[in-house]
Amino acid sequence: MKTYPGNKLIDRLYNAVAEKGHVCLGLDTDYSYLPDAFGTKFASPAEAVYAFNREVIDATLDVSTVYKVQIAYYEAMGLAGLDCYAKTLAYLREKKAIVIADVKRGDIAKTAEMYAQAHFTGDFEADFITVNPFMGMDTLKPFYPYLEKKDKGLFVLVATSNPGANDIEGILAADGESVSEKTGAMVAGENAAFLGESGYGMIGAVVGCTNKNQTDRIRARLENVFFLIPGYGAQGGKAEDMKYYFKDGNGGVVNSSRGILLARNKPEFAHLSFAEAARAECVRMREDIQSAL
Amino acid sequence: MKTYPGNKLIDRLYNAVAEKGHVCLGLDTDYSYLPDAFGTKFASPAEAVYAFNREVIDATLDVSTVYKVQIAYYEAMGLAGLDCYAKTLAYLREKKAIVIADVKRGDIAKTAEMYAQAHFTGDFEADFITVNPFMGMDTLKPFYPYLEKKDKGLFVLVATSNPGANDIEGILAADGESVSEKTGAMVAGENAAFLGESGYGMIGAVVGCTNKNQTDRIRARLENVFFLIPGYGAQGGKAEDMKYYFKDGNGGVVNSSRGILLARNKPEFAHLSFAEAARAECVRMREDIQSAL
Repeated sequence: MKTYPGNKLIDRLYNAVAEKGHVCLGLDTDYSYLPDAFGTKFASPAEAVYAFNREVIDATLDVSTVYKVQIAYYEAMGLAGLDCYAKTLAYLREKKAIVIADVKRGDIAKTAEMYAQAHFTGDFEADFITVNPFMGMDTLKPFYPYLEKKDKGLFVLVATSNPGANDIEGILAADGESVSEKTGAMVAGENAAFLGESGYGMIGAVVGCTNKNQTDRIRARLENVFFLIPGYGAQGGKAEDMKYYFKDGNGGVVNSSRGILLARNKPEFAHLSFAEAARAECVRMREDIQSAL
Repeated sequence: MKTYPGNKLIDRLYNAVAEKGHVCLGLDTDYSYLPDAFGTKFASPAEAVYAFNREVIDATLDVSTVYKVQIAYYEAMGLAGLDCYAKTLAYLREKKAIVIADVKRGDIAKTAEMYAQAHFTGDFEADFITVNPFMGMDTLKPFYPYLEKKDKGLFVLVATSNPGANDIEGILAADGESVSEKTGAMVAGENAAFLGESGYGMIGAVVGCTNKNQTDRIRARLENVFFLIPGYGAQGGKAEDMKYYFKDGNGGVVNSSRGILLARNKPEFAHLSFAEAARAECVRMREDIQSAL
């Protein structure tokens, strides 16, 4: 697959997809996901989760294109959990992995500037963060200086994969366009100022793969917008639906979290350690998506 | 003003408004807001912010009805900042203050359960949290067990006060209703299952006071929904607009953050310490709102 010489973050992500495939490994690591015999070796759940994350990361660096760390699982463990979150991000940086912090923050003005500082610098620094656009494009603008000067990126919620997504995202305006479509168009407009050599920009979109018609229309209209695609596996998304989300086999990554973290529970991986099983599931998923393109 | 015997959180908030007025003191405490001579006495910005918060809290407990702590300002300081956030919440609990954690989290399923655990238990426990409903009513449901069993509450973004709020919240559906109005109606529907003696429910709404026409319509339709009202002062909201948001002088609290935290910079409070000035501004704001009702 084609790669580009650009060294912007979005080009590095594009090239990583070309080289390694579409797997985004979600480190939504709940303590209950750890094998009992592993988890109980540590002084605290947070320490156990960090050790688990390290083993999964070590086993998957060459088959996972990007890692998505879901901060909610760490916040739920309080201060110790956020220490574990910071350490997990530091370990991924050390390994030169590309990291999406799935924080879904969304605020305005100085508060949004604070979120930018929180997640693009310091203890919680990541490459990309997810953003909730409900309050409008005001939620994005305070991040732009970081996109330009620190080579950071955003993935903005546009069409999510949950059953209730239609409550608000599916509201149809008088012109027949949904809130998702209008949001997508606004995101594409903002993204146009941040394009890399690959043709994609630093402001991507979260587009779930469980609503094919809706996302098919969005893909056609958002040709420079890179997609973070949740919903594969557990939520019902299938590889055969994926072809609608890519262009020339690139332009998106597909997230799987529990499917990978708990892959050891699959009969075909039962003989493997949790880390080996995570790796085997990344390989299986990568081939599943590749075969459908 | 009337009070109710109910001992649910929402009734306690209602009664606190009847007794103390409408002031919601926003602890959006940036280190730069501290007087130089105060901030530099501490080993770290986070420690200084915690000490500043304590002094402001001590000075305002009888004139501030509820405190809203904006987590973004603490996240921006990394782990030390979240330690300061946890300590500030603990101090407010110790003082038996009612606390809104302004976290604007919004996610679904197990991830939303993790946010509920994070902000309704443990290090970051608060009474109310703010929630972003973009992903639909799925974002609210995982919090309901806490509303019922732990006497917690939500404030859901419905019509915010920022200039770009119309980008998404202002999209008009084919029937002429805005996304804000439709969101408000959904929130009111959910809230109906959680009513207290006062007639208000545990699922409130964030309704900014800078868009009078829009919020006037929302108020008329959401009679059991308690309002958290941002936009007073710095963002242009005036006390005279407030009457559209209340019913019998109750049913909402009005947030001010910088206006209170930096009140010492007002000429009329220049002779006061920062904490005395914060208190004086709470009293002034309370009377300003009261006089307009």
